Amino acid sequence: MLEIEVKARAIHKEVKIRLDQLGAKYLGVESQEDIYFDHPCKDFSSTDEAFRIRRTNKNCYLTYKGPKIDTKTKTRVEKEIIIRDFDIAIEILKSVGFKDIGVVKKRRQYYHLNGFNVMLDKVEELGDFVEIEKKGGKYDPIEVLDLLKLLNVENQIRKSYIELLIENKFSNNR
Amino acid sequence: MLEIEVKARAIHKEVKIRLDQLGAKYLGVESQEDIYFDHPCKDFSSTDEAFRIRRTNKNCYLTYKGPKIDTKTKTRVEKEIIIRDFDIAIEILKSVGFKDIGVVKKRRQYYHLNGFNVMLDKVEELGDFVEIEKKGGKYDPIEVLDLLKLLNVENQIRKSYIELLIENKFSNNR
Repeated sequence: MLEIEVKARAIHKEVKIRLDQLGAKYLGVESQEDIYFDHPCKDFSSTDEAFRIRRTNKNCYLTYKGPKIDTKTKTRVEKEIIIRDFDIAIEILKSVGFKDIGVVKKRRQYYHLNGFNVMLDKVEELGDFVEIEKKGGKYDPIEVLDLLKLLNVENQIRKSYIELLIENKFSNNR
Repeated sequence: MLEIEVKARAIHKEVKIRLDQLGAKYLGVESQEDIYFDHPCKDFSSTDEAFRIRRTNKNCYLTYKGPKIDTKTKTRVEKEIIIRDFDIAIEILKSVGFKDIGVVKKRRQYYHLNGFNVMLDKVEELGDFVEIEKKGGKYDPIEVLDLLKLLNVENQIRKSYIELLIENKFSNNR
């Protein structure tokens, strides 16, 4: 399934005012812990793929994300299943050679607007972001970028949270 | 978790008579479809590992099995989680490079005897087998081999069903 997505740094208070003005529907809040893995015999950061196990306060998921398909957004193929037992799932992936490269922890508030999920993410060690996402919809990068503008948010970031975290660690260690 | 296991060809009718005599408890029957995968960059048949997705009439599972730990039984480390969505799970494993090497379909009748699961397997293309298994118990290969004798079953097989199927295909093609 195609996951059409954009992301940007954002001041949540300001975005919430815009979401209210535009009539967005608040769906709820979730805590998420994502463990990212690198492949046993290739480098996912160079193939622009991602493989992770997510634990929320409700469920666990195993997710594969393919390379980004355009240069404007973070749109990519996503394949995801619900799994049980976060810890054993991690052990299984490690047993077949996947390498744990880091964890992303965040608090995610979900809104729905014009057929998109709008998510306000408070990410540990990184700060506040907005992500706009539609899963399985018709691929139209303009539409999702227009929605970002409508929220008065600029400076889209095409890097993932785990890439940003690894970058931070690297620059802190220099 | 350690999976202590032995397997042998068996005539189910005769084993059932013995199970009755020994007071085994019948637990139920399940249809199972197992897709086995080879690793993206090593050969699981030479490392004696196994990685599979199982679909039964009740659940789906993702399972890793480590190399056999002795020369007498099929005992090995097993790590297993329940997953949802068999077809997407297969897609995810293929996306990260695992190769589908074949499917094992069987009808499995479960019995419980002396702390062990005794399973009567009717395997498509292979025939009738008995497997005796205990998960997470104290490692005692003698105990499980004694139970096999108690059922009057001989000629233990240390190969997995998928190995037997691949062998069959190979010899049929010669």
